[in-house]
Amino acid sequence: MTGTEDENIAARSGGDADWARLDLDRAGRTGDPEVIFGAGKTPEQVVTLLRQLGQRHGDRAAYATRLSAEAMTAVAAELPRARIDEVARAATLGPLPKPYGKVAVISAGTSDQHVAAEAALTVRCFGSEPVRINDVGVAGLHRILDARAEFDDADAIIVVAGMEGALPSVVGGLTGTPIVAVPTSVGYGASFGGLSALLGMLNSCAPGVVVTNIDGGFTAGVHAARIARRRPA
Amino acid sequence: MTGTEDENIAARSGGDADWARLDLDRAGRTGDPEVIFGAGKTPEQVVTLLRQLGQRHGDRAAYATRLSAEAMTAVAAELPRARIDEVARAATLGPLPKPYGKVAVISAGTSDQHVAAEAALTVRCFGSEPVRINDVGVAGLHRILDARAEFDDADAIIVVAGMEGALPSVVGGLTGTPIVAVPTSVGYGASFGGLSALLGMLNSCAPGVVVTNIDGGFTAGVHAARIARRRPA
Amino acid sequence: MTGTEDENIAARSGGDADWARLDLDRAGRTGDPEVIFGAGKTPEQVVTLLRQLGQRHGDRAAYATRLSAEAMTAVAAELPRARIDEVARAATLGPLPKPYGKVAVISAGTSDQHVAAEAALTVRCFGSEPVRINDVGVAGLHRILDARAEFDDADAIIVVAGMEGALPSVVGGLTGTPIVAVPTSVGYGASFGGLSALLGMLNSCAPGVVVTNIDGGFTAGVHAARIARRRPA
Amino acid sequence: MTGTEDENIAARSGGDADWARLDLDRAGRTGDPEVIFGAGKTPEQVVTLLRQLGQRHGDRAAYATRLSAEAMTAVAAELPRARIDEVARAATLGPLPKPYGKVAVISAGTSDQHVAAEAALTVRCFGSEPVRINDVGVAGLHRILDARAEFDDADAIIVVAGMEGALPSVVGGLTGTPIVAVPTSVGYGASFGGLSALLGMLNSCAPGVVVTNIDGGFTAGVHAARIARRRPA
Amino acid sequence: MTGTEDENIAARSGGDADWARLDLDRAGRTGDPEVIFGAGKTPEQVVTLLRQLGQRHGDRAAYATRLSAEAMTAVAAELPRARIDEVARAATLGPLPKPYGKVAVISAGTSDQHVAAEAALTVRCFGSEPVRINDVGVAGLHRILDARAEFDDADAIIVVAGMEGALPSVVGGLTGTPIVAVPTSVGYGASFGGLSALLGMLNSCAPGVVVTNIDGGFTAGVHAARIARRRPA
Amino acid sequence: MTGTEDENIAARSGGDADWARLDLDRAGRTGDPEVIFGAGKTPEQVVTLLRQLGQRHGDRAAYATRLSAEAMTAVAAELPRARIDEVARAATLGPLPKPYGKVAVISAGTSDQHVAAEAALTVRCFGSEPVRINDVGVAGLHRILDARAEFDDADAIIVVAGMEGALPSVVGGLTGTPIVAVPTSVGYGASFGGLSALLGMLNSCAPGVVVTNIDGGFTAGVHAARIARRRPA
Amino acid sequence: MTGTEDENIAARSGGDADWARLDLDRAGRTGDPEVIFGAGKTPEQVVTLLRQLGQRHGDRAAYATRLSAEAMTAVAAELPRARIDEVARAATLGPLPKPYGKVAVISAGTSDQHVAAEAALTVRCFGSEPVRINDVGVAGLHRILDARAEFDDADAIIVVAGMEGALPSVVGGLTGTPIVAVPTSVGYGASFGGLSALLGMLNSCAPGVVVTNIDGGFTAGVHAARIARRRPA
Amino acid sequence: MTGTEDENIAARSGGDADWARLDLDRAGRTGDPEVIFGAGKTPEQVVTLLRQLGQRHGDRAAYATRLSAEAMTAVAAELPRARIDEVARAATLGPLPKPYGKVAVISAGTSDQHVAAEAALTVRCFGSEPVRINDVGVAGLHRILDARAEFDDADAIIVVAGMEGALPSVVGGLTGTPIVAVPTSVGYGASFGGLSALLGMLNSCAPGVVVTNIDGGFTAGVHAARIARRRPA
Repeated sequence: MTGTEDENIAARSGGDADWARLDLDRAGRTGDPEVIFGAGKTPEQVVTLLRQLGQRHGDRAAYATRLSAEAMTAVAAELPRARIDEVARAATLGPLPKPYGKVAVISAGTSDQHVAAEAALTVRCFGSEPVRINDVGVAGLHRILDARAEFDDADAIIVVAGMEGALPSVVGGLTGTPIVAVPTSVGYGASFGGLSALLGMLNSCAPGVVVTNIDGGFTAGVHAARIARRRPA
Repeated sequence: MTGTEDENIAARSGGDADWARLDLDRAGRTGDPEVIFGAGKTPEQVVTLLRQLGQRHGDRAAYATRLSAEAMTAVAAELPRARIDEVARAATLGPLPKPYGKVAVISAGTSDQHVAAEAALTVRCFGSEPVRINDVGVAGLHRILDARAEFDDADAIIVVAGMEGALPSVVGGLTGTPIVAVPTSVGYGASFGGLSALLGMLNSCAPGVVVTNIDGGFTAGVHAARIARRRPA
Repeated sequence: MTGTEDENIAARSGGDADWARLDLDRAGRTGDPEVIFGAGKTPEQVVTLLRQLGQRHGDRAAYATRLSAEAMTAVAAELPRARIDEVARAATLGPLPKPYGKVAVISAGTSDQHVAAEAALTVRCFGSEPVRINDVGVAGLHRILDARAEFDDADAIIVVAGMEGALPSVVGGLTGTPIVAVPTSVGYGASFGGLSALLGMLNSCAPGVVVTNIDGGFTAGVHAARIARRRPA
Repeated sequence: MTGTEDENIAARSGGDADWARLDLDRAGRTGDPEVIFGAGKTPEQVVTLLRQLGQRHGDRAAYATRLSAEAMTAVAAELPRARIDEVARAATLGPLPKPYGKVAVISAGTSDQHVAAEAALTVRCFGSEPVRINDVGVAGLHRILDARAEFDDADAIIVVAGMEGALPSVVGGLTGTPIVAVPTSVGYGASFGGLSALLGMLNSCAPGVVVTNIDGGFTAGVHAARIARRRPA
Repeated sequence: MTGTEDENIAARSGGDADWARLDLDRAGRTGDPEVIFGAGKTPEQVVTLLRQLGQRHGDRAAYATRLSAEAMTAVAAELPRARIDEVARAATLGPLPKPYGKVAVISAGTSDQHVAAEAALTVRCFGSEPVRINDVGVAGLHRILDARAEFDDADAIIVVAGMEGALPSVVGGLTGTPIVAVPTSVGYGASFGGLSALLGMLNSCAPGVVVTNIDGGFTAGVHAARIARRRPA
Repeated sequence: MTGTEDENIAARSGGDADWARLDLDRAGRTGDPEVIFGAGKTPEQVVTLLRQLGQRHGDRAAYATRLSAEAMTAVAAELPRARIDEVARAATLGPLPKPYGKVAVISAGTSDQHVAAEAALTVRCFGSEPVRINDVGVAGLHRILDARAEFDDADAIIVVAGMEGALPSVVGGLTGTPIVAVPTSVGYGASFGGLSALLGMLNSCAPGVVVTNIDGGFTAGVHAARIARRRPA
Repeated sequence: MTGTEDENIAARSGGDADWARLDLDRAGRTGDPEVIFGAGKTPEQVVTLLRQLGQRHGDRAAYATRLSAEAMTAVAAELPRARIDEVARAATLGPLPKPYGKVAVISAGTSDQHVAAEAALTVRCFGSEPVRINDVGVAGLHRILDARAEFDDADAIIVVAGMEGALPSVVGGLTGTPIVAVPTSVGYGASFGGLSALLGMLNSCAPGVVVTNIDGGFTAGVHAARIARRRPA
Repeated sequence: MTGTEDENIAARSGGDADWARLDLDRAGRTGDPEVIFGAGKTPEQVVTLLRQLGQRHGDRAAYATRLSAEAMTAVAAELPRARIDEVARAATLGPLPKPYGKVAVISAGTSDQHVAAEAALTVRCFGSEPVRINDVGVAGLHRILDARAEFDDADAIIVVAGMEGALPSVVGGLTGTPIVAVPTSVGYGASFGGLSALLGMLNSCAPGVVVTNIDGGFTAGVHAARIARRRPA
């Protein structure tokens, strides 16, 4: 998620971009798409980087995350072939990889939708098929039991939750599929910006629940896709 | 839980105890039993205080909490009419009040048993009937659903849990009865001595869940008994 | 406080709302009103949800909390039968339930008024009668003693305080009525956004004091109303 | 990791154990072994639980973790067919499952060996083959590069590290295999019992690194085995 | 509270002490006694330092604080003219200064007695007269009102309290005398070793309440004595 | 700093103010001025409260603290006899008390000037004479030594410092006068909003240093004035 | 970074500046430039201070750090001979010292560029030659190995990193040159404003890595320049 | 500080050690001695590792740190040519390097002596000459000024302090020599195990002060020696 300083990009591309960094080697190593971490970048920087990647790696997806509204507008205007996902606050350019396996992305409410959408889109960009399961809250057991059929078929499960972060424990009690828990910053007062959900998930009494950073939809998506895409086609 | 300095006790009782403190007025104000907070007191201090209270208030219960193993042994040896609850780490002396209403005390596992037992005994000493519901963990939904019949009849519910502290949220989604959540210090690593469970419960997505200090079985028992004993006999 | 994703609402109502979540089943389970958690929702979302609930459950109250000024304005303009409580930052629509019992809501100063008002309105929406007792600070003992007559008659007591959060301990020393303490984010410096008051209340030396999240007027109101409404009419 | 209260065990086994809890249903649901969480249990409790599970589920492994030295001695003396892993502080009884796939368990030094060994044994008990790769520290790049061949063949990678917790980031830069990072409590001063390593891993700049609780070798082993055992035999 | 390395002491005294440090100049600057901070010193070191100070400054008090039981025993055996205060865990040697003014030392219960006694003895050693007022808890308003007559005559007030640390706010509402609040480490769970009381006192709503470190009876005693001894004889 | 709700004020004054709180009794008890805590109050509220106090207690000062720029402008416009201190962000109305004794207010740089000015003005309003000593930083020993003559004559010393909060320790090594340390929120990064300075001051190695909340110039001023005004005229 | 109050400046310069502080003596003591800490100063204050220093110490550099965009604009307009470094957010005026030795400044990505640029400019102002090495991330080992030749020649190394702060450990494993690690506030969620990187660096397993405050480019630059400039010319 | 797993050592040495790890390559890279981090190792492990290093690298020093009393006794008994430093809790074996330059190690009192001694011995082992300056506390300015002559001649300065950690700021105001600050865990209450000193040093107002982990005498010694040994002989 760190990057190549501008002179390096300039040197490699013959261009003049002088403010960003892309790890052009990682994809070759890992089979993953090129990723632009949009936080802290100007709309112009995001557009330029996406364009460069699109020109240089036309056969592979470029994926820009954590975009501001302004950056999404600029990408839409300048790169008509880019696809914008406003909920995920992200953009993709170029052909997405053929998906292998399935990843269930479970979340409770609208507050967590940005993180869940980022996780789902990341799953797709890293080569698997996301299946969104919404409206599943820890205070509504019947809905969780209903959803079980939906996630039993998945190769990996991502559970997104804020506040007390209890949902992964409940889901984890119902399945032997690998689970990744994503705490969100949704809450107030003693949620301390997601710390409550983070600690809750780290201490889950369900076995095998692993955790990402707060609002770590991207991390969860990468991890889960790498699990799921191992499934033979 | 604070106390009368020794000279006061000495003055009132004509004795020579010089190390402790009992709030002799509270019970008159509130209808509650006399309570001795045993933490940090020697076995001798606990025995003397229980004996004094027994002599002075023979018609009412005296209740000593947070006793060490040594203090429980000393009380058993010196005060044969005292009742020891080794799991709750507590002792009572004198007639318990007539119980009104019921309080369900729900917990998951053996690790939380001390806190749950303290909550249950406190409920009893403060004038209600505790009903223990064990073996209810957030990772086992069917057991929770089974337990629902058991707690639907209660006037108040105490939920005791460590680790991620998610159980009150799940129980809270099933009932309109007042719930008190008790975080325990059970866990390791990022449970930080119960902080994880405490934060989880404070951020519960189930409406109306209130919380005690970590390992606050006594507080929960007092609160819940005061709710339940309002039920007409 | 979590909710049904928009497609679900749409499916159930035949409408087109696609961004929110309402737990339509909880009320049936608990006797509570429908609640819309307004934080993070647009004015349009709040209006639409209130309208839907009003149409579907005309015999029961809908209650929207944590509204922005814009949301309150929009509700007032679009739903003339809605009632706005600007101090509580909330709105209600439809008939409130018949109140049973009384809940005293004690607070010290104007800084805590939003949280105290939310607690009081929540008490009313969940079926009990709130009684506001203002101007009670821990540094003014005579006022507290004066207020005692006012809260001795209550079925439950909510104490709202910021800064050091000491008020519940003082009130708790005067009564045997169940007390819920609400820490507020009022303060500066080492109040750390309400952490000081939260810790103070969790460590109260008065027996039976239970605590909500910081600024948790809603939680306190639900809990206290559920206690008080048990009183026979 | 929570458990069945004693009366349940008693009911099922006809015995009189009254202090423990085993989730006898989970294995049926997930394909996992029976697990006894040994922390806080007496040697007698551990022995009794292992014996019961061995009798009831002779065709499946029972696995007891976080055992004290006394508990390991007692198990060795009472259950001669049990296998003790002193470094992992664990015991197993009964046939281990046929392993599918491979999990690399990477650690730096002797200080982290207990956590790494617990992770490896857990991998084995949950149905995959652990491959230990030791002596890999972030301050020794050549050793990491050497180890690459060893972990490139794995289906999942567990990286165990204390202090600054940087090793998963370095490993993550070299591979597209799913990585689980385990922070350990090894360190002093501002490591704050593993908090430093935990935060470092949560903020890893390498994509897709997920994290367990501090000293969470068991969690990592479960998660990784569930990934690896999906590999067709 | 820091100190002179042994060679310095040796140089000054012609002796052979080689492990400690005494600020021999401070007293001349401030009128205060010589102080030995006993924490982390062996009984032998404490005895030697007290003896040296007694020989060199026979006209002034030497005051050793934070002594272990072993150190108190050694001082009693080796220095028969020393006075031991077992509750304050301290010893004095040589003539105490003539006291000026009065300092009220208010505390609630036996748990805080060590800190209150250290504060009181420090007041005496630094030249004022301590007046102990015990059995004053925030949950017992009438006792506080009774105590008012006792502390209204003081030149400074020290209030010692653990748990929620609310007592200074209540006392501060009744008086215009300077108040120093001392948080103690008494409590459990979310008292976090005195952090709860410390934060509570720092956020006191009573004007002019200043605070010491946790268990800072020595600091409070020095500060209050310096206030009180300004009173003309 | 808490207050009387508006209806109370209205009742007492026959007026219609309905939003604020003033402790009209404290001054009688303590000899202190009336104080309006301006944070969170509108300019209109501040003006009305000051006017009411001025009318009712014309013989005594009213003192409004923590005023916004808007509130200061409004006070200046509406109450021409009020005095505005823009650095202290405060206003006074009516005759200040005759000052007794002196309080030195020591600070290092311009960043701390608001807090130091609030401390100084508070000293004056509570009946003593402040003496400002600026430009004294812990990294400039000669300036501290120069300032010694200036603060040796004071009855109490207030030391204001941000960042590492070391200045009180250095000053405390030079004097036997009572010292109050005020940590400020000046700093960045790991100063954590003044936490670093707060902890530094609480752990001062100089004896007798007591501490206020972060940015607690008001508290320090009240405490120090109460010390200094005891000096006979 | 603290300073001389305005009256002092006025006295020394015959001017009328009354709001700032400069330590005019330090440079004489240390050979360092005059530094103006721009945070919290108005553009006018920055300009005036720079102009004064330029007039008084024309033979030495003045260096203003942490400038707002407005301050940089004002300096450029008012002091045409000043040099602005927009990335470092700083300005210099007057001749820079002759540089001795070299300091490598290593950073990973564009997010850290402000801190790295401030470190580099500070190195230059304090008398050494900075060499920027960009695009070095912990997840890209080959780039680090490539950079080794670049930093092996340096007299000191500054490593700037956010997120998990692992880069100094990796660099430290490759060299015996003194290393200063600078954690940055770059990151999200559980990076907690740079705390994660700070703790990671403090716990580095590479020997001899010392650390600055979060975003402490200035501190690192001063320390490293003082090392490097010792090299004989 | 990490290490080679036993099998590696065994493979390289033909021996049978099976529990430890030594980075045999680092010294060749950096010119530093071999270091054994003794914490968590048994006396036998320490002895064996020291012996192996002594045999393999007889021309270079081996240095074992953080030894328990038992380990020091074992080393003294088994390796008569080893030198034990009981205050530093360390042992060395083999010829120390020729020292270049000087490092002043400043500390205040006996409590910090272990950390200061470890820093000094580390300086010596890494090739420079330590000069101990004791009895320098922030509350005693004259002693600091006296010590100035002693440290002005040094190539680097290490300042060791606990409690508020203010000493580096005072020293830093007097010199332009590179300073490394070492916070110690000395203190109580809100020192939080050295956190107070750590934060104080990170926020030092003196320019160029860099910081180690709590009790990081080893880190400081390595860093300072690497600075000082650059001085031409």
